Amino acid sequence: MRMYDIIKTKRDGGKLTSEEIRWFIKGYTEGAIPDYQAAALLMAIFYEGMDDQETAELTLAIRDSGDTLQLGLDGIRVDKHSTGGVGDKTSLVVAPVVASCGINVAKISGRGLGHTGGTVDKLEAIEGYRTDLSTEEFVEVVRKVGVSIIGQSQDFAPADKKLYALRDVTATVDSMPLIVSSIMGKKLAANDDCIVLDVKCGSGSFMKTEADAFKLAQLMVSVGTRAGKKVRALITNMDRPLGRAVGNSLEVCEAIETLKGGGPGDFKELCLQLASNMLELAGKGSLEECRAMAEDAIKSGRALDTLAKMVELQGGDPRWIYEPERFPKAKYSLEVKAPEKGYIFKVDTEKYGEVSLILGAGRSTKEDKIDNTAGFVLERKTGDLVFKGDVIATLYTTEKKEALERAARLMLSATALWKEQPEKMPLVLGSVE
Amino acid sequence: MRMYDIIKTKRDGGKLTSEEIRWFIKGYTEGAIPDYQAAALLMAIFYEGMDDQETAELTLAIRDSGDTLQLGLDGIRVDKHSTGGVGDKTSLVVAPVVASCGINVAKISGRGLGHTGGTVDKLEAIEGYRTDLSTEEFVEVVRKVGVSIIGQSQDFAPADKKLYALRDVTATVDSMPLIVSSIMGKKLAANDDCIVLDVKCGSGSFMKTEADAFKLAQLMVSVGTRAGKKVRALITNMDRPLGRAVGNSLEVCEAIETLKGGGPGDFKELCLQLASNMLELAGKGSLEECRAMAEDAIKSGRALDTLAKMVELQGGDPRWIYEPERFPKAKYSLEVKAPEKGYIFKVDTEKYGEVSLILGAGRSTKEDKIDNTAGFVLERKTGDLVFKGDVIATLYTTEKKEALERAARLMLSATALWKEQPEKMPLVLGSVE
Repeated sequence: MRMYDIIKTKRDGGKLTSEEIRWFIKGYTEGAIPDYQAAALLMAIFYEGMDDQETAELTLAIRDSGDTLQLGLDGIRVDKHSTGGVGDKTSLVVAPVVASCGINVAKISGRGLGHTGGTVDKLEAIEGYRTDLSTEEFVEVVRKVGVSIIGQSQDFAPADKKLYALRDVTATVDSMPLIVSSIMGKKLAANDDCIVLDVKCGSGSFMKTEADAFKLAQLMVSVGTRAGKKVRALITNMDRPLGRAVGNSLEVCEAIETLKGGGPGDFKELCLQLASNMLELAGKGSLEECRAMAEDAIKSGRALDTLAKMVELQGGDPRWIYEPERFPKAKYSLEVKAPEKGYIFKVDTEKYGEVSLILGAGRSTKEDKIDNTAGFVLERKTGDLVFKGDVIATLYTTEKKEALERAARLMLSATALWKEQPEKMPLVLGSVE
Repeated sequence: MRMYDIIKTKRDGGKLTSEEIRWFIKGYTEGAIPDYQAAALLMAIFYEGMDDQETAELTLAIRDSGDTLQLGLDGIRVDKHSTGGVGDKTSLVVAPVVASCGINVAKISGRGLGHTGGTVDKLEAIEGYRTDLSTEEFVEVVRKVGVSIIGQSQDFAPADKKLYALRDVTATVDSMPLIVSSIMGKKLAANDDCIVLDVKCGSGSFMKTEADAFKLAQLMVSVGTRAGKKVRALITNMDRPLGRAVGNSLEVCEAIETLKGGGPGDFKELCLQLASNMLELAGKGSLEECRAMAEDAIKSGRALDTLAKMVELQGGDPRWIYEPERFPKAKYSLEVKAPEKGYIFKVDTEKYGEVSLILGAGRSTKEDKIDNTAGFVLERKTGDLVFKGDVIATLYTTEKKEALERAARLMLSATALWKEQPEKMPLVLGSVE
């Protein structure tokens, strides 16, 4: 087999065989195929696409480029994966809810590049919380409390790491088959039995249109199913931040509030829908029954206790979960006020994300340190009527005081006020399985 | 400026600015831009193309990536460049003809990869002929006899060398703007005042269709003209080998025969047309007058004397030119005979080229040694009637005796016999300026 022929076949609109795809991924991961030939192939794929079968093969080849996670747990393992959005702290709620209903959640989560940290970074806002457990410790925590969330230490899907770095510098990120194989290659390496995908759609997400989001969801479900997993995708609205809090400590506190039965309506609703779908996939009953189960897990306080126990077993202080006022507060804050009367007609969620990034809540490069106290809390959201001078949001930071004014201006520029109320959009646009 | 943005602009169908193109070529030549980003851009150019202005800028940037040839000669310098074909030994005739009419031809020629060697390799079939002159020696020979043909020693258009090597392994060779900028970037670095391009078209050439050949010719002429040169292109037929001889010594002998007033009709005619166009561009009179001049240069023997003098000044034995029977002969030969009666309806010229390659006349890799005696001489060509057992060609080799049978079979498989005579195609399909 020659890499030249593989590039040429794809360049001319042909279909790559399973053998060719696996040979490419193996050779590229091992360094036998140089970056420049991989770059040419990626660009050809950008233009020519891949059919469902090619995409599935590419995903499986990426999965198989490293180890898959083998935990030897009893019972079904289920996970949730989000394509990423602003204010998305659902894992912090969904994982303990599902675990407290008797289904294992052994979650290996990423760090974030962008507006805030990833789930692992958020959990590290809890003093002492260890995300670097050994596999034995990880299994032990899941056995005891049904859930553990840690960072990635093993080298899962190394092909993806290499490919993603190359795509990032060759303008080949925005390609459906490459996106699908990257997400699902990693996800399948984690080897869960059931996966619920939260595919975000709208201004704050990767997929700007509903059609693209559905197409992505369909492809991911199809690939996961071919790999022998139970997979379902919810397509959810990301035309505004999820919940009210954006920023690491702020989001953990909002998740705790939600596990206590409070929390913003949209966020709570999405958590319940995700959790009930996970429970249903895991065979716990009908969607309705699973929904009731999830609601009860919150109402009874079991889910909150589960989170507290997990935190304790991973080295954190469980009192922080029961008394979130223990989280350190930001040194500086600034209120963003409405410049005139009007309905918040729409917001540019991506720019809202940038607001949190410049306040110090996220990383621009891998080396950046996160300010756990930084971020913002929204007082008003899309659809709300505001009067001149009303507080739309409060910005927080400890490390980037000088960025407060700029962040406030950016937020206002990303907030469209209008005399009419916008049409209400559903939170969940549909599901695919 | 960021390479990422340049790739993305082209990927999305945009136009690159002159600054962007020059920045890319400079950065890539110096090694500041990595191969993988260049590969992604080349593939995007493969798909999106370049307009005439971008192509011209790319060509000039490639030209300027190294030195341009400065000889300080008096008078006009003219050259001819062929896109390459099987049996194309026109330079060996055209250069001395033009020089003997008083126009300088200072030709830096390449070695060949493929069916036979390049012009420089062919000349080296003459014992002692030196192709590695210093610039001073080169100028001295041109001053004395009006013509010198040497190999490339200076690093002209280094960007092209690097780009071509990358295109070769990333399936991005077949792209019109990349072909044009590669050929013309190098050609313009040689800094001739006038250039006649011989753009081949048909089964034995790069451009398989007449439309593509005309498009390529137009682009090359346009780019050369923008660079301030007098440029004209002839589009010529390569649906059969040019002349009868293919192989290094065999072709030099055919060129000598032609300079003596003999030679195959098609080959002689093309040489005269190329030479008269070169002379006309150089201002020697009308095309008709220049044609008469070129014919007289042959008839009078002046062109042959010019070649002999050049050979002598470059270390070769001029008696080989006057007595070509001095060239060593192949040890082995084989006649290829017609298996039945019929007209030679058409031949696959590319496969004929392969015949000469497997007999040892060409190189598959840079390291291969050329067998100067190897190749073939055609006894019958397209349009000729043959009877069963008639000799179509004689194959020659010294080093690859074992390949004779296979070469004969290949030649027969590339020769279509038919009961009707094919339509006659003109040798020169048109010209562009």
